[in-house]
Amino acid sequence: MTAEEILSYIRNVPDFPKEGILFKDITTAIKEPKVYAAIIDYLAKLVKDLDFDYIAAIESRGYIIGAPLAYKLNKGLIIIRKPGKLPAEVVREDYSLEYGVDSLEMHKDAVKKGDKVLVVDDLLATGGTAEAACKLVKKVGADVIGCLFLLELVALSQNADLPTPVYSLIKC
Amino acid sequence: MTAEEILSYIRNVPDFPKEGILFKDITTAIKEPKVYAAIIDYLAKLVKDLDFDYIAAIESRGYIIGAPLAYKLNKGLIIIRKPGKLPAEVVREDYSLEYGVDSLEMHKDAVKKGDKVLVVDDLLATGGTAEAACKLVKKVGADVIGCLFLLELVALSQNADLPTPVYSLIKC
Repeated sequence: MTAEEILSYIRNVPDFPKEGILFKDITTAIKEPKVYAAIIDYLAKLVKDLDFDYIAAIESRGYIIGAPLAYKLNKGLIIIRKPGKLPAEVVREDYSLEYGVDSLEMHKDAVKKGDKVLVVDDLLATGGTAEAACKLVKKVGADVIGCLFLLELVALSQNADLPTPVYSLIKC
Repeated sequence: MTAEEILSYIRNVPDFPKEGILFKDITTAIKEPKVYAAIIDYLAKLVKDLDFDYIAAIESRGYIIGAPLAYKLNKGLIIIRKPGKLPAEVVREDYSLEYGVDSLEMHKDAVKKGDKVLVVDDLLATGGTAEAACKLVKKVGADVIGCLFLLELVALSQNADLPTPVYSLIKC
């Protein structure tokens, strides 16, 4: 299955979450076992030569990609969540995104100085969410060695200001 | 690794999300590659003889368990989300949970009549969330063949009213 074939399973939903946004709906892709397997296997190949200890997956669609990838690659899974969801002591980052303002939190003891982390989400647009995730990882002294996405919206991502290499399976 | 050893990696956080609740924090388990792999492999064994087409994972910790399991078992992954998150037409269920009231949504075309679905979440307490998820699957005509959890809080789950067999790795 090619990246283009995978893309054909991703549904475009107009005007979600607000007017003028063409939403990339991955639910129609991940419900097909062959497509979901192809997505994870391709992403695993993309990062197979990178040296890292943890996958940090961004809530919640990032888990859909990051969790099976962590399992497959035998890495630890770190979760980066919306505010108030994590039970222990957290670090927090506020950020602006394509359609509003939001915050992300990570457990303070999720990773430590010297740990190498790959940040994973489903989609890269303006990069605000991923940038906040990178800042959280750095805040506790760990290193982000890259950011991995299933989809990259190139019209928006060209202005993204991510501090690390970016890997994406489908550029559209 | 035994179920008891896995349990030893799960952190107990008192008074979260509110006073009197002892929260089971799985983040300390899934960040250890060996523990995360053991969790997924054990859960896969638990359901290996069941006949089903899809895993329906409940947002968002359910994805951490359900996504790698769908990948490993070569099943389609369906996501059941908090209101307003899914872009296409949805079905909705309101429910009461241990600490409040909430709603869940699923895409109307996520599954269809005759499809067999395994509902997956991280934790079974009073069962309200999983029951709502089962209702969503049935609402569109599909069948729930079971509910699978990493953790089951037996003091609370004994009164759960789930319409299907319940499988859980750790009873505590």
